[in-house]
Amino acid sequence: MKAYEIGDTRNGLALRMVERPMPVPGPGEVLYRIRATGLNARDMTLLLGLGREPGPETRVPLMDNAGEVAGVGPGVTRVKVGDRVAMTHYWQWLDGAWDVKMREQDFAGTRDGFLAEYLIVPEAPLVHLPDEMSFESASTLQSAGLTAWNAVIESGRARPSDVIVTLGTGGVSVFGLQWAKLIGARVIITSSSDAKLERMTALGADNTINYRATPRWSDAVLALTGGRGADIVLNTVGMGEMEQCLLACASGGRVMYIGANPVAPDRKMPTPTALANFPNLIIKDLTIKGVTVGSRRMFEDMLKAMAVNKIEPVIDRVFDFADAQAAVAYMQSGEKLGKVVIRID
Amino acid sequence: MKAYEIGDTRNGLALRMVERPMPVPGPGEVLYRIRATGLNARDMTLLLGLGREPGPETRVPLMDNAGEVAGVGPGVTRVKVGDRVAMTHYWQWLDGAWDVKMREQDFAGTRDGFLAEYLIVPEAPLVHLPDEMSFESASTLQSAGLTAWNAVIESGRARPSDVIVTLGTGGVSVFGLQWAKLIGARVIITSSSDAKLERMTALGADNTINYRATPRWSDAVLALTGGRGADIVLNTVGMGEMEQCLLACASGGRVMYIGANPVAPDRKMPTPTALANFPNLIIKDLTIKGVTVGSRRMFEDMLKAMAVNKIEPVIDRVFDFADAQAAVAYMQSGEKLGKVVIRID
Amino acid sequence: MKAYEIGDTRNGLALRMVERPMPVPGPGEVLYRIRATGLNARDMTLLLGLGREPGPETRVPLMDNAGEVAGVGPGVTRVKVGDRVAMTHYWQWLDGAWDVKMREQDFAGTRDGFLAEYLIVPEAPLVHLPDEMSFESASTLQSAGLTAWNAVIESGRARPSDVIVTLGTGGVSVFGLQWAKLIGARVIITSSSDAKLERMTALGADNTINYRATPRWSDAVLALTGGRGADIVLNTVGMGEMEQCLLACASGGRVMYIGANPVAPDRKMPTPTALANFPNLIIKDLTIKGVTVGSRRMFEDMLKAMAVNKIEPVIDRVFDFADAQAAVAYMQSGEKLGKVVIRID
Amino acid sequence: MKAYEIGDTRNGLALRMVERPMPVPGPGEVLYRIRATGLNARDMTLLLGLGREPGPETRVPLMDNAGEVAGVGPGVTRVKVGDRVAMTHYWQWLDGAWDVKMREQDFAGTRDGFLAEYLIVPEAPLVHLPDEMSFESASTLQSAGLTAWNAVIESGRARPSDVIVTLGTGGVSVFGLQWAKLIGARVIITSSSDAKLERMTALGADNTINYRATPRWSDAVLALTGGRGADIVLNTVGMGEMEQCLLACASGGRVMYIGANPVAPDRKMPTPTALANFPNLIIKDLTIKGVTVGSRRMFEDMLKAMAVNKIEPVIDRVFDFADAQAAVAYMQSGEKLGKVVIRID
Repeated sequence: MKAYEIGDTRNGLALRMVERPMPVPGPGEVLYRIRATGLNARDMTLLLGLGREPGPETRVPLMDNAGEVAGVGPGVTRVKVGDRVAMTHYWQWLDGAWDVKMREQDFAGTRDGFLAEYLIVPEAPLVHLPDEMSFESASTLQSAGLTAWNAVIESGRARPSDVIVTLGTGGVSVFGLQWAKLIGARVIITSSSDAKLERMTALGADNTINYRATPRWSDAVLALTGGRGADIVLNTVGMGEMEQCLLACASGGRVMYIGANPVAPDRKMPTPTALANFPNLIIKDLTIKGVTVGSRRMFEDMLKAMAVNKIEPVIDRVFDFADAQAAVAYMQSGEKLGKVVIRID
Repeated sequence: MKAYEIGDTRNGLALRMVERPMPVPGPGEVLYRIRATGLNARDMTLLLGLGREPGPETRVPLMDNAGEVAGVGPGVTRVKVGDRVAMTHYWQWLDGAWDVKMREQDFAGTRDGFLAEYLIVPEAPLVHLPDEMSFESASTLQSAGLTAWNAVIESGRARPSDVIVTLGTGGVSVFGLQWAKLIGARVIITSSSDAKLERMTALGADNTINYRATPRWSDAVLALTGGRGADIVLNTVGMGEMEQCLLACASGGRVMYIGANPVAPDRKMPTPTALANFPNLIIKDLTIKGVTVGSRRMFEDMLKAMAVNKIEPVIDRVFDFADAQAAVAYMQSGEKLGKVVIRID
Repeated sequence: MKAYEIGDTRNGLALRMVERPMPVPGPGEVLYRIRATGLNARDMTLLLGLGREPGPETRVPLMDNAGEVAGVGPGVTRVKVGDRVAMTHYWQWLDGAWDVKMREQDFAGTRDGFLAEYLIVPEAPLVHLPDEMSFESASTLQSAGLTAWNAVIESGRARPSDVIVTLGTGGVSVFGLQWAKLIGARVIITSSSDAKLERMTALGADNTINYRATPRWSDAVLALTGGRGADIVLNTVGMGEMEQCLLACASGGRVMYIGANPVAPDRKMPTPTALANFPNLIIKDLTIKGVTVGSRRMFEDMLKAMAVNKIEPVIDRVFDFADAQAAVAYMQSGEKLGKVVIRID
Repeated sequence: MKAYEIGDTRNGLALRMVERPMPVPGPGEVLYRIRATGLNARDMTLLLGLGREPGPETRVPLMDNAGEVAGVGPGVTRVKVGDRVAMTHYWQWLDGAWDVKMREQDFAGTRDGFLAEYLIVPEAPLVHLPDEMSFESASTLQSAGLTAWNAVIESGRARPSDVIVTLGTGGVSVFGLQWAKLIGARVIITSSSDAKLERMTALGADNTINYRATPRWSDAVLALTGGRGADIVLNTVGMGEMEQCLLACASGGRVMYIGANPVAPDRKMPTPTALANFPNLIIKDLTIKGVTVGSRRMFEDMLKAMAVNKIEPVIDRVFDFADAQAAVAYMQSGEKLGKVVIRID
């Protein structure tokens, strides 16, 4: 069977297709036939060897996925051969409280990811896909989709009376817009591109702010809300935007903190970019909440809601398995709005 | 100025129009020019003198309302003359926890209601209407609309992944359908009338059950949900339906208890109609939650959400102030689906 | 190794000791050396063959337990030989939402329980005991202790400003008193025995009500709270007491429903004992919440809190393994206050 | 009647006693006879004229208070002459959601405070004192006591299984320790003074850390908790400590942000003191929540819990009304542990 490995990152992107033996599922394991995989900003860090010592790397990249059950090991009861499924990213997080130790074993982080024809996976974190959802659509959801779901619906507890601001038009922001409109909230979106803001308006955004034209975009949020501010702000960018996020909040508002600062060109982890003071936190009774993807139960909730409301993810472009390098290059170009998907036939 | 009084209920409905002197607002009070008022099942009990000793009654009936500020007393800061407003039903409940003592002073319960041209009201519980909302629309919301809002959004904490069942097609159920669809839930609705079920489907219901054809409607709910059941059931009927509500629930489900049993013909308060056992409560981890209208803050939240999502209440018919008796008679007929409104020009 | 089987229940209690082969743990399994097991009212139903067709029964009874890891199968990582542990009752409920399907596989319900020297158990639901907690103490917690914890701390969300009423002096009520006092609440306790009420006062109860002297005990709760009522009532008895529980509640109060009606002498499941009306549910904004033991995470939370606060369960009497019949007979006598434990050396 | 005014702060502390006419309550108002008032760090800022343009200032300082109702205006129903009461600091915040506009009218901030024999106050925010609570004790609660209550009990939702860290031994930290122990949590406390840490241990702290000896105190928290970390950290210091607060947190932990950075010597508002990055926020699923004192309902809850549990605030020293200057000087010395109170006979 075919798979891509990250390759030797000393000169940057080195993705290469290899042949691997067909794996066999053990007790409680599933042979997973991957049919589509999506690209995320976080994947790019790994693909480019940033944030770690560069060098040869045989791991299979990409964390998003959708496919079929092609075989089952002894004792598997949750799925059967032929089931259309997807794998939860933090696969030990089924329900309840998060534990940071669950990060130690994530797909595409410390073990092989999904840019391959097959992978052996545990059965418990698999979720069933709705009948009408394509593999391409389902393969965009694990990371950006579920993070936005957690931020808006689960941790954010958004309500139809809320004003929700999303920063930028990246994957999490586009899903954030969709989930916020799903529950009837008013959505304000920021971007430096009027073209992208027009796209977001077409997708349902109630108001838009071009932060190049209005660098102090928090003032624009206050102006659009009669001075009251936003109930929820999705900070998908990083600490550098936190002060404006807090200024944009209404009393009792919540900033969902999703974005980390980008990895610096010297391959080191992000350096501090903001001088923090944040007095608004106290006098406006605000909350900053970190959001780290979501559990299997949240994933299942999101799929249910998508099926009932016939919601499709916004897909910018689909590539063939053979063109994975082109997909990554397109992802790097920053032109896209919505997800980039690789189909595996 | 003109007002209706309940009249002498010894022979049933005795509504009569009277002249009253124009009232003058004191400190912190507002002269409220009522422009529309809606009818509720709970109003009928008062209009017919049920549940209490019948006799002459000079109170003004009806609890729903919308109108304008026509004058303000000293110290009023929250509203000004000309503002388009509505009055919260339990007017001492501004935000936070409910106290049953707040019932002692409710409009149309223990003090005059809104079937009149003017009324003196305190300023604090007034809420501003969205610009685009008509008085007729706004006058349907205080009781049925807000009760359903509390049941679905506030106490119910409904989510897009939920299955919500509403019983019947009364005022609370129709609003319940609207709020449940607003946040993207799947809605199943019951009725004894296929014609009404068709109307509910047109309003967005995902599934319908005719409980005359299927008396054990809880089985139908289970069948429609692959055996799992509902996350929220709006019990708008009474304890007689509680066992089926619990049987219809999924693990962790919640029954929002809204309806009381109807007042018996002997004018006494409802008698018990159910033998209670309810073992499902324990083994399925269920909750029964009483719902008692809602606070000013919930009312404001609901209006905000209606404005953003351009939601209109379902109005069956509008009567003129002079035809209040006809409006009540139409309400009694049980033909209506949606609200019956009286316009006060 | 030795174990007790329920035996042939056609003539009532038929508990008998048998020899069984020493079991061997498979992948992910643990050989559990049981060192103590506690008795619960729910066990009595099984031991006496009530609620089902009487006849021969080879299952091992009793659901509470504490002991040591005596051996581990392949792949076990959560525990090691020698660890002092206890098993969660609903062992599939690790964290998050309950699913009624988890009842299908409970210890002492559908599979062997813990009145034996050894049992094979899955590793995931095992919890570690605090160093200073004896096996006898730990063997009282799974059922009554955790149910009360869930009712007071988890589902009840009790606070130091709450008034909490517990009904009777059974296992759940005694733990309920301990957890309620742990978080600083005011506790009112009911019983028909002044002697038991004195014991409860010694254990920290703030007020007591003898419901034989005051059958309408809800009035006494109102009198003790200046007319306000209780924030939480633990209904450990059944639906027959529900109306008084609701009458005893303050606005916004919650009844935690734990008790089922006792099994009738004809061995059938409980019959309805209450005519339900419950108008207070609505006008006082009340909640009835079923409580079904608790998850592994709740169990761990409870153990942590017991260790920090040096809380010991109330143990009435400890029997030797050889005297299991005498322990059951003592349990039947109804004399006890606190738990009855069987030590397994 | 006698009162203190802040005086001309151009040379620092200028507190001076003045005679003022006895005020008369209007409609809904109460003549409040103040019997004790406590000192807070926030008061010192005002008394020293920091954070604003220095100059003559006739306002009465101090926000904490306790006393009696000495007279009532027309329409007052909540209290009567002779009632023992205290006033909520943010007096418009009765229950429910906070609104930052409520700060515009706070006692000792924008209107007169309580270092006086009498003050006219609105009736709604007055709370009744428990019978057994002295005026001196009650006068320590509004600011530090209620802020800590909100942080631990209300916003923090602390549980007996939680580990709670409080920074330093200021007023909020001492109350934080008391409330955390009240609900059975494990408490770790930091200070630079071993003597103060000994006092905190005597008050119930489970563990102490001298941050002078262990500047990276978050490591000590991790070591004391087997690597897991704290569930709640009360950051009473400011953003300069935020990174260590986050490092000290367990997965799912919450930092209650209470402290602002101190006002700089140039009388300007605090300058940023931390370079923010905070990646732990995301990977550990953490929350930072601003805490701004509390509502009347929280105040009443706290008083109820204090009465039931016989909790007394820690009072360092009580001064007479005539010695207010000495009280302020003692407060400045930083020697105290617990509250400094001024008695007004």
